[in-house]
Amino acid sequence: MMPTTGGRHIALSRDEGQIVVALYREGRLSRTDLARRLACSRAKAGQLVNALLEREILAEPVQAGGGRSRLVEMNPGRGYVAGVDIGTTSMDVALADASGRILRHQGRPASVESGPLEAVAYVETQIREMLAAQGAPAASLLAVGVGVPGPVRFPEGYIIGRHFLPGWDGFTVREQLAVAFPGAAIILDNDANVMALGEQRNGLAQGVDEFIFVKVGTGIGAGVVSRGRLLRGATSCAGHIGHTCVDFNGPICRCGNRGCLEAVAAGPAIAQAGLAAARSGASEILARLLAQGEQALTAEDVATAAGTGDSASMHILQESGRMIGDVLAGVVNLMNPELVVIGGGVSRSGYQLLTEVRRAILNRSYPYTAVDLRVEYSALERMGGMMGSVALALDWLFQVEGESLEQLQPG
Amino acid sequence: MMPTTGGRHIALSRDEGQIVVALYREGRLSRTDLARRLACSRAKAGQLVNALLEREILAEPVQAGGGRSRLVEMNPGRGYVAGVDIGTTSMDVALADASGRILRHQGRPASVESGPLEAVAYVETQIREMLAAQGAPAASLLAVGVGVPGPVRFPEGYIIGRHFLPGWDGFTVREQLAVAFPGAAIILDNDANVMALGEQRNGLAQGVDEFIFVKVGTGIGAGVVSRGRLLRGATSCAGHIGHTCVDFNGPICRCGNRGCLEAVAAGPAIAQAGLAAARSGASEILARLLAQGEQALTAEDVATAAGTGDSASMHILQESGRMIGDVLAGVVNLMNPELVVIGGGVSRSGYQLLTEVRRAILNRSYPYTAVDLRVEYSALERMGGMMGSVALALDWLFQVEGESLEQLQPG
Repeated sequence: MMPTTGGRHIALSRDEGQIVVALYREGRLSRTDLARRLACSRAKAGQLVNALLEREILAEPVQAGGGRSRLVEMNPGRGYVAGVDIGTTSMDVALADASGRILRHQGRPASVESGPLEAVAYVETQIREMLAAQGAPAASLLAVGVGVPGPVRFPEGYIIGRHFLPGWDGFTVREQLAVAFPGAAIILDNDANVMALGEQRNGLAQGVDEFIFVKVGTGIGAGVVSRGRLLRGATSCAGHIGHTCVDFNGPICRCGNRGCLEAVAAGPAIAQAGLAAARSGASEILARLLAQGEQALTAEDVATAAGTGDSASMHILQESGRMIGDVLAGVVNLMNPELVVIGGGVSRSGYQLLTEVRRAILNRSYPYTAVDLRVEYSALERMGGMMGSVALALDWLFQVEGESLEQLQPG
Repeated sequence: MMPTTGGRHIALSRDEGQIVVALYREGRLSRTDLARRLACSRAKAGQLVNALLEREILAEPVQAGGGRSRLVEMNPGRGYVAGVDIGTTSMDVALADASGRILRHQGRPASVESGPLEAVAYVETQIREMLAAQGAPAASLLAVGVGVPGPVRFPEGYIIGRHFLPGWDGFTVREQLAVAFPGAAIILDNDANVMALGEQRNGLAQGVDEFIFVKVGTGIGAGVVSRGRLLRGATSCAGHIGHTCVDFNGPICRCGNRGCLEAVAAGPAIAQAGLAAARSGASEILARLLAQGEQALTAEDVATAAGTGDSASMHILQESGRMIGDVLAGVVNLMNPELVVIGGGVSRSGYQLLTEVRRAILNRSYPYTAVDLRVEYSALERMGGMMGSVALALDWLFQVEGESLEQLQPG
């Protein structure tokens, strides 16, 4: 699969690619460490490292005393990469150095319904301002990774968003950003996939080759990693667990089907259930929050109420967790992951949801499959999407035999 | 992951491994073809081929006229591999040459409940007889692949069968066969995984990198292939879709949970529903078949009755298909395969089940995910398991940098 990400790529041999992946994953390493990772001689590793130092892809970090370290790292001075997380209700942009370390980031609330032109303009402005703040020219931007809350045809990079992103369908974010940053490789993916990469690079999934990242926010989606590699499926639609039916008589989902997990367990459904509890008198605190607000409640309000011990709110979150866990039990049976990480806005709503997800998975999955399974909330909070977009950008900036570094993950 | 399959392996370089994989997949190829597959020069491909010819791993087939072909193939004279398919109610053993072509096969009905010693003795006898019929010494057996109807710790090769294979739990089929054939690499896997490999090598999934094989027989299980590679999960328990709950108030499954897909939709559940229809008077033909038999019906009886247009039997198969399809809709949402292949005994019960599986997947999955999906019965019938076991044996006989050829599949 030849990526068509626009911009320039940096070609590496297979061995060089392994070195770059190892340094991204583990930070600074010695030539001896790298020889061990590549199962090659110290001399061969030395040659490979020297060639990469010459191309300024690697650097030897300056030690505290001023001398040269025996270690090497990805050359942070090679240029910059941007990581963009376009959410349904927010936008976040990060600038990182070429070693993947985030230097600056900026975000704001934003409705995805305002359309792609406004989003792209914001992203462009933020990247330009951050580069300027670093004293760096626009041409030093090597790559941009972008996550969007809907299906993306990968690696072509256009959005197939008739259902989820009105106004975005077929919009080529990549081509738009390529006009702004003609020297940069630009790569676009679904938000749950991007967050899975963030979790793998910086979060709980470091060193874990079999895991599922589940985003629970306005929608529900998953990033599936097996053998250390993100799986995208035949038409880049893998991970759409939010559209698995959990209630054949349930409400119509925005995808057009009935009773999808997303329609009954994501943020808007939680908010809707909270509203019903406020109006029916089942929850005094939700009624108070409703009166204070603009006749609307959010999933965060329900979480706040649950945090004070409000039983109606706790029950709403538990129900959501149970349904998510029922679907995840099937996912666990199929994929047999070592770890399930739950992120996205709703994952910041307290322990009730997580507890029910765990319980449902244990109750509904095949005993051998779940016995050593860990199910955790992500600790990356809003940084997860940006970290993942940076990882996506770096993986696709470098190429081995026309393939991205994603293909080189161990396993 | 260093396989511990016992026996001798044949070490290849990465490029040599690519050549072997290409020849397994495509049969005879020229040096020019191979240069194209490896994206290398014709001269380099020629060198690699010559080295493999010298080691007698490849051969130049003799042409009809007696001259040498310009093509090369896997050397069929290099030795033999056996492919074993241990089912719940049958055992099949095949002998293939080192190019993967099946030369002989033999099977018999057998209850898995008779235990592993009897099974291993049968397998050993069959392999010895087939080798003798070929006029080949036992030492010419290079590898044995074995599929068993239960979870297998892979690649260690022992059965974790407390639930499914009474008497087999912890039994080391590999060590037993290694005593009989000390020179052979022996590798054991779950039957659905093995059948998926058979489908990839010889069936509908040739050249398909994203597919799911579903075995519907006494149990229900899946083999998951993504990026051309079989996924086994963190503890080799991937593909256990038969233990996804479809009816929270359903019958107890042999795994200990309630309402598993397998407990309500596999062969025994179909037979059970047929028995009820026979006794209640809902089906005259089933009642007749019951009277002819020994007060028992099989899933095949229900299929026979459905084939004559018996509406109760058709309904039973449709219900089974609907429940399988409901679970597969979730699988399709998660994995976004290009193809779902349904095999196993129940897949030979007519079109009703397949039609309902297709309908349920279309009804319950995310529209974009299913739009180009094909759902088909396997055409390999009983050969699928043997073909897959042969493929498994060959993939693990050759090793590249301590890894099996499975890792080298393109994608």
